[in-house]
Amino acid sequence: MNKKYSIENLCNRFKENDKVALSKLITLVENDPDSALEIFNKLNHVENESYIIGITGSPGVGKSTLTGQIVKRFTDQDKKVGVISVDPTSPFSGGAFLGDRVRMTDISCHPNVFMRSLASRGYKGGISRAVFDISLLYEAFGMDVIIIETVGVGQAEFEIYKLVYTTVVILVPGYGDAIQMQKAGIIEIGDIYDVNKKDLGGEDIVVQIEMMLDDATTSQSGWRPPALMTNSINGEGIDDLIEKIYDHKEYLEQSEILKEKKKQRYTFKLKEAMVDKIERILFEQLFDKDELETAASELLNKKFEIYHKLNKMFDNVKFDVEKK
Amino acid sequence: MNKKYSIENLCNRFKENDKVALSKLITLVENDPDSALEIFNKLNHVENESYIIGITGSPGVGKSTLTGQIVKRFTDQDKKVGVISVDPTSPFSGGAFLGDRVRMTDISCHPNVFMRSLASRGYKGGISRAVFDISLLYEAFGMDVIIIETVGVGQAEFEIYKLVYTTVVILVPGYGDAIQMQKAGIIEIGDIYDVNKKDLGGEDIVVQIEMMLDDATTSQSGWRPPALMTNSINGEGIDDLIEKIYDHKEYLEQSEILKEKKKQRYTFKLKEAMVDKIERILFEQLFDKDELETAASELLNKKFEIYHKLNKMFDNVKFDVEKK
Repeated sequence: MNKKYSIENLCNRFKENDKVALSKLITLVENDPDSALEIFNKLNHVENESYIIGITGSPGVGKSTLTGQIVKRFTDQDKKVGVISVDPTSPFSGGAFLGDRVRMTDISCHPNVFMRSLASRGYKGGISRAVFDISLLYEAFGMDVIIIETVGVGQAEFEIYKLVYTTVVILVPGYGDAIQMQKAGIIEIGDIYDVNKKDLGGEDIVVQIEMMLDDATTSQSGWRPPALMTNSINGEGIDDLIEKIYDHKEYLEQSEILKEKKKQRYTFKLKEAMVDKIERILFEQLFDKDELETAASELLNKKFEIYHKLNKMFDNVKFDVEKK
Repeated sequence: MNKKYSIENLCNRFKENDKVALSKLITLVENDPDSALEIFNKLNHVENESYIIGITGSPGVGKSTLTGQIVKRFTDQDKKVGVISVDPTSPFSGGAFLGDRVRMTDISCHPNVFMRSLASRGYKGGISRAVFDISLLYEAFGMDVIIIETVGVGQAEFEIYKLVYTTVVILVPGYGDAIQMQKAGIIEIGDIYDVNKKDLGGEDIVVQIEMMLDDATTSQSGWRPPALMTNSINGEGIDDLIEKIYDHKEYLEQSEILKEKKKQRYTFKLKEAMVDKIERILFEQLFDKDELETAASELLNKKFEIYHKLNKMFDNVKFDVEKK
């Protein structure tokens, strides 16, 4: 790495509010998890606390446009906003979606906004590792608000809600029935439900959500998730949505649940990083590639013995875990 | 568990081709991974080898209807077909998609067809664990063909292609440009590319795919993935698609790559199961909940030290791995 882009140099420029340096540091932690230690080492004087919001929903619900609208409201209030967009579906999606992306880009030109898209594939240590590290960089950069936009489809995407304080679940009119929503687990993760594209209707979904929330065993936390309607194209309902986000923030702060959520964020991160670390130990120290391949070959003619095989492989390893 | 549903009883009925028993055994391995050892122990006399096909694509590309059409062609050839549908998006999706599901259900009433949907969330050991175990049950049940239908959006869904022999990637007209397709990594996983909804066009995408395949460093394997067009509603192009699947199967068999793919399937499965096992050891023997929570609390005021913390936690653990 040439001197201009040394971590030290980048961190200095970062502290002077240089977006290019922020961008390059993000690329560093994205591609090389080990650089994170050195980078955060140089930033540990920072005391800024960002408020972290998750926006999740299926492809096509208007997530990006809605995020753009939300970002705009925050910048109107002179907030600095960082966006992390985890959207593996966008490359598959149609022209309209690319249009949304363009609209987001307009907002991302605002001096107080920074936006980053993650492809969500091939990250060492997984997507949420990268999302956590980038959000930490955003906090150090002085963001007031961080928005993590996810598709909320796969398991990994779904778990990102453990890294945020307020989760907004976006639905659109015509989306399945109540039982299926419950099956998908979305009724457990939302702090706010937003039925977007209200020009296409949506009252029926709001009613279904309310009914499900009634049925759900009353949450310990005492927060009743509101269900509202927006139209992300013309901005209808967005002010109400922002108000609900502030309501939830205030609720979390007053009830000390925010502290719990922050702890949960670090617990989740620690667990993930530990699994990542021990996975490396597993395949570097315990079992090498040849051993695995031999085992796989032996299974070719006795595939139903796979779990036997597995037990036998672990039987042969002595786990002497000992704390100093 | 009452006697009627004991694993022994279920396995006996399973061997007599009882679909209810198959269904109940699937539920068992889904919910209790440990039961898999006992179940497969009773089935290890089976020699049937199924051919495993993966069908992947974004929500809304017509995957389910297409799968229905493919299944129909195979049953017309007197094949027994098992389908595993991993589709976390269906609950979010609209009426048309639910309609597709109904159409699939028609096919699944056929005596030689069995279909199972996975919600893809909350599985112990992950989705691919469940998918592998169910596919093994299908093999034991004597299926000639197994189709694994996935959304191909999240990381976990994406990796399921490691469990199949032929991967069919479904696209539709108007879906982004070449660079984005490459970014999404789909050009690496497809053995066959199918542009569905050909009534809406699609020639341009076929051309883009062909160009990307030209650009790609010539695959070692020597198989040039064909790109074709279908209309899953009226069945146009499906016969051609089936032919291409057989071509790929024949190619894999003759080149011995099929054996490699089977080995890769077991290697992937072994790795996954090992990570699952060691994760349990990690959080049951090495670090308990209290320790993690304490560490997380300490991070509340010094979040940038997270990687230091992590290193220190592992420093305190002595890993004495020793093979007997």
